[in-house]
Amino acid sequence: MLTDQVKKQVLQRYIDCWNDGDAEGVLALFADEATAEDPVGTEVAVGIEAIRAKLLPGKEQVIRITLDGPIRTTYGNRAAMAFTLDCWFGEEAKRIKVIDVMTLDDEGKILALEAHWGDDDIEPLPADQH
Amino acid sequence: MLTDQVKKQVLQRYIDCWNDGDAEGVLALFADEATAEDPVGTEVAVGIEAIRAKLLPGKEQVIRITLDGPIRTTYGNRAAMAFTLDCWFGEEAKRIKVIDVMTLDDEGKILALEAHWGDDDIEPLPADQH
Repeated sequence: MLTDQVKKQVLQRYIDCWNDGDAEGVLALFADEATAEDPVGTEVAVGIEAIRAKLLPGKEQVIRITLDGPIRTTYGNRAAMAFTLDCWFGEEAKRIKVIDVMTLDDEGKILALEAHWGDDDIEPLPADQH
Repeated sequence: MLTDQVKKQVLQRYIDCWNDGDAEGVLALFADEATAEDPVGTEVAVGIEAIRAKLLPGKEQVIRITLDGPIRTTYGNRAAMAFTLDCWFGEEAKRIKVIDVMTLDDEGKILALEAHWGDDDIEPLPADQH
């Protein structure tokens, strides 16, 4: 069983890697057989290569993540966090309000990522936030 | 498939009922066969009477819930929210940082509640917040 601190560190590192533009660092957090449902209700990516294709679509993207409050843990190998994701794809800039739930294995690798956001949680990035 | 608005209304109503001290209103949001894992990693309450026993332990409790940001929806019948829960059991007052994930049925009743919080997410309620 992972400690609360370890679980929270994994989720914090997921944010830090995105904010550093460290895509390989993001992927290294996942177990080989991990799944990612991002957002919930769409096709589940199974395995690290499918997750790579899902999270890193190949086009240039810049992502900035800001936590909306502390990362939460649980009494199991799961943790969750609410955050604001600002992303730029070339000219387009969006703000998405997300809640990620992560299930970890006993080594602290991510086994399952479930991202909660929908059309109603997306807005154009405010001009003064660019 | 529920609209984003309906999903968010159900979760908002869950909060409102708690804040109004309307325990029966809280229970009325659940489907008869619903499950509640609160927090994740503890025994799952199955069915409305088990949920009643879990969420309403019989001792006097006062609960105040404040959202930490907007309720998130998904592309499925699921929604999530991060909040701060202040609760009083007699002399004891605690603050818990929670993320709830709710799966709904096609009528908008709660089929599954998963509450994400652990020991590390609890603190004594600050004295100036009583």
